[in-house]
Amino acid sequence: MREDDVIELIKKRLKNSRRDVIIGPGDDTAVLRYDKKHYLLLTTDCVVENIHFKRPSASFFQIGRKAMAVNLSDIASMGGLPLYALVSAGLPAGLPVKAIKQLVDGMQSMADAYNFDIVGGNLSRSPVLFIDVSLAGRVEKKHLKLRSGAKPGDAVFVTGKLGGTLAGKHLNIMPRIKESRKIIRKVRVNAMMDISDGLSSDLTRLVNASGAGFKIFLDRIPVSADAVRMSRTVKDAIHHALNDGEDYELLFTVPAAYKNKVPERAGSLHVTCIGEITKEKKYTGVYNTGKIVSIRPSGYSHF
Amino acid sequence: MREDDVIELIKKRLKNSRRDVIIGPGDDTAVLRYDKKHYLLLTTDCVVENIHFKRPSASFFQIGRKAMAVNLSDIASMGGLPLYALVSAGLPAGLPVKAIKQLVDGMQSMADAYNFDIVGGNLSRSPVLFIDVSLAGRVEKKHLKLRSGAKPGDAVFVTGKLGGTLAGKHLNIMPRIKESRKIIRKVRVNAMMDISDGLSSDLTRLVNASGAGFKIFLDRIPVSADAVRMSRTVKDAIHHALNDGEDYELLFTVPAAYKNKVPERAGSLHVTCIGEITKEKKYTGVYNTGKIVSIRPSGYSHF
Repeated sequence: MREDDVIELIKKRLKNSRRDVIIGPGDDTAVLRYDKKHYLLLTTDCVVENIHFKRPSASFFQIGRKAMAVNLSDIASMGGLPLYALVSAGLPAGLPVKAIKQLVDGMQSMADAYNFDIVGGNLSRSPVLFIDVSLAGRVEKKHLKLRSGAKPGDAVFVTGKLGGTLAGKHLNIMPRIKESRKIIRKVRVNAMMDISDGLSSDLTRLVNASGAGFKIFLDRIPVSADAVRMSRTVKDAIHHALNDGEDYELLFTVPAAYKNKVPERAGSLHVTCIGEITKEKKYTGVYNTGKIVSIRPSGYSHF
Repeated sequence: MREDDVIELIKKRLKNSRRDVIIGPGDDTAVLRYDKKHYLLLTTDCVVENIHFKRPSASFFQIGRKAMAVNLSDIASMGGLPLYALVSAGLPAGLPVKAIKQLVDGMQSMADAYNFDIVGGNLSRSPVLFIDVSLAGRVEKKHLKLRSGAKPGDAVFVTGKLGGTLAGKHLNIMPRIKESRKIIRKVRVNAMMDISDGLSSDLTRLVNASGAGFKIFLDRIPVSADAVRMSRTVKDAIHHALNDGEDYELLFTVPAAYKNKVPERAGSLHVTCIGEITKEKKYTGVYNTGKIVSIRPSGYSHF
């Protein structure tokens, strides 16, 4: 069973009954009542040894950092700011005290950089190291962006460059909090999410949530230098950008008529228009040569 | 290194800088700004295969239930009500769909019983099954109870009966949410927490947080029928009640002069006075025979 199918199965068995749940399971974060001007955002994500990182190629500092970064990216995907983190760690017996200190320092370095507080946690013994983080954040009600807001005709944009993240970026993620805040304030956005499992998977999720499809121009996808280095052909590099995952960039859509204003509004922020949302629920890729392919959600699945 | 020492080490490396953090790491839950009348409570706790449960003696429904219950107990320990849960699950490859359904149904059964919503989550592959839950709750500002509020002379109370939980109770935990709400409204409480790792460990934590000590009358400790069944002597049974852990009952202190009013105020709620808080920072147990022993925090440690 694929991860998305399991999630659908789980969602069907859950009942959300409180009136103060604005968005329950299914988006990047849950959206809840908070105060007059803001929603509360709650999200959780976990990094597990030998699944999301391997020792010793990842340092403990980097593991702590990554555990926070993947959650920060979820808050960014909703246009929010982080507030409080909880950390639940599963630690193998015999893990040196020095390792625990480095894990904590890695996490605190992100708290310093992104202005949130680590307010609690829990330690368990576990045969494998895992760090599970829950992050609370908030967003102005008027600025909340969902993955389900895309409209047929919308132009599809991504921030940064994609692919090749295993070469190093996956251990040095820069969550797009500031970039997201800039986009929601400066750009008229219909839908937004982060790219965590790869553009092919996450764009499919975005259009599925919006009841639409997409057509992207494959040669326009911004490919990272690392993805180019690990590729022999342009097509290879595009595949890396589509499917490698762990980019933690932003994916957003804007009304077609507004498309040309985005680069100017985004200023120094690197944004690229890669295609459009279609009414037809198909996942289409077009090469420069005119060749048309069907895009499958083939991003990296942690599941 | 003991769990409490690791936690102290971690706390020293964390900086809490936001003004809206009322209580950061160290109590049962973090306490944060929410609205005019309430604080937000955030807590996290994890159950790991072969550490907190074994298959197949625990059913998947029971595992899901327990993952929620241990977190609900933390919210109860602060006098709060649960609102929203996030679930991060590490699932071994090949886990049947039926098992996932039962896990979810176990969790949702607690959401139904305790009136909160499961609003999001995350799935990871993991070599061992783990379920990490984060729970948000709220408490009226005037009702917030901390473990650090005990005063010398206070009488020490526990709810329910302790020990012998491995015989079955640890898979059928009834978090003391209603009981806690009754206590905070009806009884003048100075300090409160839940008993998760065993009375000896958790009472030590309570007095350490309050800068005090305790003297308890060991024969007054309410011993569960299961603890009696698994013991050959009264002393054995008391040891079970002191150290088995996973009781998920409440431990609270009240001003000495108020002690005799507690049973009447608690009504149908089973509460027992087991001793007192002392100015001297010692952990003392007294038997009916007059024999005095030093109590060591020997509760079950998951770490």
